[in-house]
Amino acid sequence: MKKSIGPKTLIYPNPVLLVGSYDEQNVPNLMAVSWGSICCSDPPCVAVSIRKARYTYNNIMQRKAFTVCIPSEKHVNVADYCGIYSGKQENKFARNNLTEVKSSVVDAPFADEFPVVLHCKLREINDLGVHTQFIGEILDVTVDEEILNEKGTPNIEKVLPIIYDYGTKTYYGIGQKLIDSFTNIKR
Amino acid sequence: MKKSIGPKTLIYPNPVLLVGSYDEQNVPNLMAVSWGSICCSDPPCVAVSIRKARYTYNNIMQRKAFTVCIPSEKHVNVADYCGIYSGKQENKFARNNLTEVKSSVVDAPFADEFPVVLHCKLREINDLGVHTQFIGEILDVTVDEEILNEKGTPNIEKVLPIIYDYGTKTYYGIGQKLIDSFTNIKR
Repeated sequence: MKKSIGPKTLIYPNPVLLVGSYDEQNVPNLMAVSWGSICCSDPPCVAVSIRKARYTYNNIMQRKAFTVCIPSEKHVNVADYCGIYSGKQENKFARNNLTEVKSSVVDAPFADEFPVVLHCKLREINDLGVHTQFIGEILDVTVDEEILNEKGTPNIEKVLPIIYDYGTKTYYGIGQKLIDSFTNIKR
Repeated sequence: MKKSIGPKTLIYPNPVLLVGSYDEQNVPNLMAVSWGSICCSDPPCVAVSIRKARYTYNNIMQRKAFTVCIPSEKHVNVADYCGIYSGKQENKFARNNLTEVKSSVVDAPFADEFPVVLHCKLREINDLGVHTQFIGEILDVTVDEEILNEKGTPNIEKVLPIIYDYGTKTYYGIGQKLIDSFTNIKR
C-alpha cells in the first residue's frame, strides 16, 4: 500500500551539476544545480532549471551561453560550497582554488578540475514558474583524457559523479555496476 | 588538458525512470526514460524527454497525464526490458508480472512494485527536435511506507534507485553517502 506524501519535487537519482557562466565584469561563476538532464538527441540539448533570483540567471540571459561541469566525488565539498554561496558576493573559482578556463566554443567558463564539461549555447528559455528552464544546445563535450575508455567514452567509474538526495539533503557516490543494458532481449 | 569528444548527449548521473501511461484501449504501458528531471518547484513539475515514434508519446498526448515510477536496483531487469520493447507489441505490465494500479489523481497507471511514484498532469509540451519534452505538474507523490524515514521523507538507501550510464550502456546502483549538504558554510 502506497502512502501519499503530497506534490513533492522528489526524483531519484538527482545529479550534481555545476553551471559555469560569466557576469558583466567577466567574473566566472559556478552554480550548483541538481534539476537538470539531457533533453534532446538532435539537436543535442541539455536543460537546467534556475530561479530568477540566482546570479547565474542574468549571466546566462546576457551571454546566451553556459557550461555544465560534472564534478567527481572528490569535489563534493566544492559542489556543496557552490550550492550555498552566490557569485554576487565572491569569485567562487578563486575562493575554491579552481582553474578558470574559458570555453573555446561558447562565452562561458569551466573549471579544469572537473572531469567532464558540456559547452552550451542558449537555445530556449522556458519560464515554468519559480524556476526557468534554460535549454542549451551542446556544441562540444570535453573530458579528461585519463577517464576515457578504449572506445573514447568516459568511464563512469573514473568520472565518479555525485548524486544529490534532495529529500534528506545529502550527497552520495555511485555504487556497483548492476547489469549491461539490452541484456533482457528474450526473443 | 581536456580532450574534445564532440557534442555527445552525456551527463552524469542519468536516472532510470519508468513512465506510465494508458493507450486508447486502456492498456497500461511503461517506458524507460533516462532523460528527465524535476524542473520547477512551484508549480512542482517534472520533465521527461520522449521521441515522437514512441508509443508513450501518443498516450500522453491523448490522456494528458503520466506517472513517473522510480524503480529499485532489484527491478533493473524490468527497467531494461521496458527500454527494449514497445507497448505497441504487448502489455509490459502483464509480461513482467507487474501490479497495475490506476492513479487516483491522474488518468495514468503505475506499477505497485516501484517504491516511489510521481503522479503528473500534462502541463506543457516542448518540441525540441527529435525529442519532445513533456512537462508534468506533480499532483502527488506516493511511496511505500517502509521506505520513509521518521520525518516522512524517502530514505534513498531504501529507494535504491538505478543510474543509467548512457555512454557505456550499463546500469549502476548508488554507493555510499559522501557528506550532508550545507556542511561547507565557512563563515
